[in-house]
Amino acid sequence: MDYESLINKSLDNVFPENSGDITIDAARYSLLAGGKRLRPKMMFMTYKMLGNDPSFLDDVSYYATTLEMIHTYSLIHDDLPCMDNDDLRRGKPTCHKVYGAGIATLAGDLLLNTAMERLMKIVCDKPQYAYASYRLAALAGSEGMIGGQSIDISSENIEIPLERLYELQAKKTGALIENAVVTPYYLINGTTADSAATDKNVKLLKELASHIGLAFQIRDDILDVTANQELLGKSVGKDERDHKSTFVTLLGFEEANNKLKEEINKASEVLDSLSGVGYDVEEYRDHVGYLLVRGN
Amino acid sequence: MDYESLINKSLDNVFPENSGDITIDAARYSLLAGGKRLRPKMMFMTYKMLGNDPSFLDDVSYYATTLEMIHTYSLIHDDLPCMDNDDLRRGKPTCHKVYGAGIATLAGDLLLNTAMERLMKIVCDKPQYAYASYRLAALAGSEGMIGGQSIDISSENIEIPLERLYELQAKKTGALIENAVVTPYYLINGTTADSAATDKNVKLLKELASHIGLAFQIRDDILDVTANQELLGKSVGKDERDHKSTFVTLLGFEEANNKLKEEINKASEVLDSLSGVGYDVEEYRDHVGYLLVRGN
Repeated sequence: MDYESLINKSLDNVFPENSGDITIDAARYSLLAGGKRLRPKMMFMTYKMLGNDPSFLDDVSYYATTLEMIHTYSLIHDDLPCMDNDDLRRGKPTCHKVYGAGIATLAGDLLLNTAMERLMKIVCDKPQYAYASYRLAALAGSEGMIGGQSIDISSENIEIPLERLYELQAKKTGALIENAVVTPYYLINGTTADSAATDKNVKLLKELASHIGLAFQIRDDILDVTANQELLGKSVGKDERDHKSTFVTLLGFEEANNKLKEEINKASEVLDSLSGVGYDVEEYRDHVGYLLVRGN
Repeated sequence: MDYESLINKSLDNVFPENSGDITIDAARYSLLAGGKRLRPKMMFMTYKMLGNDPSFLDDVSYYATTLEMIHTYSLIHDDLPCMDNDDLRRGKPTCHKVYGAGIATLAGDLLLNTAMERLMKIVCDKPQYAYASYRLAALAGSEGMIGGQSIDISSENIEIPLERLYELQAKKTGALIENAVVTPYYLINGTTADSAATDKNVKLLKELASHIGLAFQIRDDILDVTANQELLGKSVGKDERDHKSTFVTLLGFEEANNKLKEEINKASEVLDSLSGVGYDVEEYRDHVGYLLVRGN
């Protein structure tokens, strides 16, 4: 089975169909409303890069599913009328457009809570995963995604300095991408806080995630200006509408494009280093190249 | 230090003051906005009942703080304009009245996420707590609090059968109270899924939690009709306003009162059993008595 089918099948099994609970139905609606599954795919790419050990496939899939649940809850809450007030997501009506804002708020809570339950449940049987679970949770929180979202909300209608935009994106987008890249390594190696602090491969993987995350965000900012809604599957021109600072508004289109290429080059250099320690980086190279092609 | 001071000091240390992050400020506002701290207090009561072992005091306090964070996030989200739309909570303006609905939504997410981080972080050092952390998370989710909230939202403006109201309350209120009662036992005994399934004390503690939780909810329904706002510290007459089924609307005032006394008697019987196996139940007896006095 290819990894996209694997992740979609796994997402399909998180909540039952026609559960009789409207909040579960709403969470399931958003979880199965399509999307690029970028984070799960990157988790599988890292898993393959690290040697494709079949004894870890189920657990990588379990964490990939959990990460996508966290990403999906963040989209549901971001789209709420009291947040970005978006009607369209992944080419379909947003959760609150279908179920109302109250149920959508609760469906987001349900996805987050269920994701966290999964992170703890597996540790009951496999205590060597405790650090992997903890880091996934932490990067979804204040030091990562929620911290970035908080800067984002606070920055509407004001022009923020470029440094602040870097911080915003490293947290809001970068943190979950870091999760996707490092988690399979943590699982396979039973990484702990102590070993993570000195492990050179962990450092390389975090650098890779950082460059890919930034490239992905710059590309997203460019697409928000240049793409059409049908291609993107979500509202375009949002950044301008919301008066948000982006890499395009702060750097200009051409400089943003240069910055995108620069981050892609840096990601390639890290892949060289990872190849140098014996990892199979070919699929990652294709992925990084794909970021360039579609963004330009 | 008494337990109320201990829990308030611990809650005060979760987030820094004037953090520079408005979402953290909002979460801190709600966390420190007073409240009865019922769940943490019950956790400390169980800890004392089980022998007051000082080597577990810090960890019980850690879990009690975490549980109160989860309770607080649920209040912030319940109070949102798209949910119950409440202006007053614990005698103060609700989070969204002070910070706006977008920040309040995110502050709730932050509290939930940070609570879950804490549940995982401690397991990195103490793997014997994995089951305690997992159960706390699970009872906050679909099988517990969020499941109850979902029934609650779905039941507005319709009269639900009494059985459904029992299910609603067992999940919405009862689940976190169960957490408060069983968690210290799990910590002290290093309880696992297997040992929990056969442990007679776990069964007794869950029964105790169930009767106290139900008594607490019936009392709350009675107070919503009889108390004044100043005494209660939150809006009164909410249930009628929201056309919600309660133990008072379904049973009538007198029968609800009888039911409250019945649950308190059942709780006392379980306390007799717990006393019989050697536990010190006196503080719990006082607490259960207090439920009766104020509710009548």
